[in-house]
Amino acid sequence: MTDTSLISPEALPRGFRFAAVKAGIKPSGKADFALAVADEGASAAAMFTSNRVQAAPITVGRRHLARSGGRVRVVAVNAGNANCATGEIGITACEQVCRAVAEQFQCEGHEVFPSSTGIIGVPLPAEKLVAALPAVVSALRSDPEGFSGFAQAILTTDTRAKVAHASFAVREKMVRIAGVCKGAGMIHPQLVPSTLHTALHATMLVYLFTDAAVDPAALDGFLRGSVEVSFNRISIDGDTSTNDTVLLLASGASGVKVEAADPKFAAALTEVCTSLAKQIVADGEGVGHVVELQIEGAPNDADALKMAKSIAHSPLVKTAWAGSDPNWGRLMAAVGYSGVAVDPEKIAIWFGELPICANGGRAPEYDEKTAHAYLEQREYSIRIALGVGSGQCRFWTCDLSAEYVRINAEYST
Amino acid sequence: MTDTSLISPEALPRGFRFAAVKAGIKPSGKADFALAVADEGASAAAMFTSNRVQAAPITVGRRHLARSGGRVRVVAVNAGNANCATGEIGITACEQVCRAVAEQFQCEGHEVFPSSTGIIGVPLPAEKLVAALPAVVSALRSDPEGFSGFAQAILTTDTRAKVAHASFAVREKMVRIAGVCKGAGMIHPQLVPSTLHTALHATMLVYLFTDAAVDPAALDGFLRGSVEVSFNRISIDGDTSTNDTVLLLASGASGVKVEAADPKFAAALTEVCTSLAKQIVADGEGVGHVVELQIEGAPNDADALKMAKSIAHSPLVKTAWAGSDPNWGRLMAAVGYSGVAVDPEKIAIWFGELPICANGGRAPEYDEKTAHAYLEQREYSIRIALGVGSGQCRFWTCDLSAEYVRINAEYST
Repeated sequence: MTDTSLISPEALPRGFRFAAVKAGIKPSGKADFALAVADEGASAAAMFTSNRVQAAPITVGRRHLARSGGRVRVVAVNAGNANCATGEIGITACEQVCRAVAEQFQCEGHEVFPSSTGIIGVPLPAEKLVAALPAVVSALRSDPEGFSGFAQAILTTDTRAKVAHASFAVREKMVRIAGVCKGAGMIHPQLVPSTLHTALHATMLVYLFTDAAVDPAALDGFLRGSVEVSFNRISIDGDTSTNDTVLLLASGASGVKVEAADPKFAAALTEVCTSLAKQIVADGEGVGHVVELQIEGAPNDADALKMAKSIAHSPLVKTAWAGSDPNWGRLMAAVGYSGVAVDPEKIAIWFGELPICANGGRAPEYDEKTAHAYLEQREYSIRIALGVGSGQCRFWTCDLSAEYVRINAEYST
Repeated sequence: MTDTSLISPEALPRGFRFAAVKAGIKPSGKADFALAVADEGASAAAMFTSNRVQAAPITVGRRHLARSGGRVRVVAVNAGNANCATGEIGITACEQVCRAVAEQFQCEGHEVFPSSTGIIGVPLPAEKLVAALPAVVSALRSDPEGFSGFAQAILTTDTRAKVAHASFAVREKMVRIAGVCKGAGMIHPQLVPSTLHTALHATMLVYLFTDAAVDPAALDGFLRGSVEVSFNRISIDGDTSTNDTVLLLASGASGVKVEAADPKFAAALTEVCTSLAKQIVADGEGVGHVVELQIEGAPNDADALKMAKSIAHSPLVKTAWAGSDPNWGRLMAAVGYSGVAVDPEKIAIWFGELPICANGGRAPEYDEKTAHAYLEQREYSIRIALGVGSGQCRFWTCDLSAEYVRINAEYST
């Protein structure tokens, strides 16, 4: 059932066990309740959605991390119900599950980190999760099969499991990082550290595991840096979820102590996060084209990001991509309404290496057929040079297809 | 060919003549070049897109109004080509058309007000418009047929002409206001007065005619007030065009002088603008449902508007509407990521009169079947009370259908 080819035994970080079972929450009847366990406990850092409407597990998870000082023993994830907009009973249901998990592992309730993903506004059937607990606990294993089961169970509208890993050696000892994530719609993560409360949205759940020994404060620094250039740089539909969560756990089982800002660890973590972020876009609902936007020459980096988002959220740009239509006028419109101080006459656009627009008008070399053929590829890049300053960014997004509408307009109850 | 039932002879403002011809710009071969002429000249006020990438006619029209001090003799509109992102040759082409029109009417070039709508980034074939001039001039007429021909010729992806009118009496003399507009996609007008240059987008063209005598400064005040609560309160796809224009002309032919801030005139103008704005949404590309959003209890009116736009631009909310899916969790997510300081536990939502969400959770009276049936209507309202302050707004938007994607993803060259 589980695809163990997702990761090799060598790549799997030491110090964790995983399992998943069917608790009866997903209408499909697939596995929907998963645990990740650090038997010796793990240092933890997390980032959550900045959406002001936050699911119960976000509230509870944030509280637990604060209370435990960044220590996690068990991660408990259910898919099929987001436990969001469920009021006080949602919090109660979430805490009930955490308590039941803590009893099984004889740990504190605040050492359990909860996550939920699925429909919003429907009460979470906590009793189903509690009833499924003994089964999932007895299924825990530290091999690729356990890890792959976890990766499968957290999926909702995703079509495939998403896994990435990296490793490096320190004095002949291996340090491993592996990540697993879900997310295909309501994807425009805008994550903030667990101690901040600003406003964001979309359900993306990401779990990162390492066997390095890292203290929680250092772990938090690594996570912020890597998330900013990966998960905070993607958008499928611009809808920032109420449940977005990225959790990083460090078991220390490798015996290698990693200090704050260690460049090898930072690079490996960013590699894993970037791979997972791109996998999310590639598996987006109804996606036919994955587009890397390269913005340069903006007044500053923040403006470059603002412009990338303006383009990535334009229905007219995204539908043109769906049709492989080289209608660069729609790009110009989105550039113009982004709010960034541009000088239209300085704008240049390339599709890959093809000049499309120069000095704000059609490039002399522009050839519609060639441009159309370029956009028929599954993956490609669009570069926009504003010629104003030195701000830049990379951003990954996708087309908006009739299939996306079909998936999200289907009313089946 | 022209549907003269669009307006009655009595409702048509005096002092104007209209005509349209086929200049060969629209690939469909339909009429695509239209004139509106004020033979005695007219006071004028205009508002333009705030998109920083602006079409040549926006630049030229703004210059002409400044130069003429708010006087217009002829409005010249072409459909099928936006003359945008066409650089200096676009400006030259636009001025060439204006000069040719001015010669025909023996007026100044800056008394001609140009507009273009259609594809962006393709040079405007000015010679086709110049060649068609004698035909359109000889076709000018001051009756419903002329007006209706004008209304038809300015359309692009619209499925029907959009007209509205209002009138009131002052000492037994009639004052008439009639408006005509086009727009079905790239619709999220963010209009600013012609003297400001801020950042907006979508092609909506609106021409408002009155036979009241109003000086340009007073006219400008009326226009700003009416546009703010009508055209600046609609969105089809959130894409603000490079060409959006609203022009208001006052011929004075009624013999009634209207002073600044006259409440009767203001009310009649707002009535016409609101009707046209709603007609644009109703004729939006692929629209199956027209939704009136009523936001109340926001910290202030600006926040209420920000929230309405967050909802109106959410692909997940709009696709749920396409499927008549009462998935109010998606509304909650869009409320939460709007950037407005909300207290989730105070949020209440109604579909029409049906309670959907109360205190941030599912309303006790919520019934999914009833809610689904309500959303199957062609037009309906959604009310969201935030319970924080007294800010409010009304906003009109629509669903996002597979048909919208089909229309905009079609690549036919």
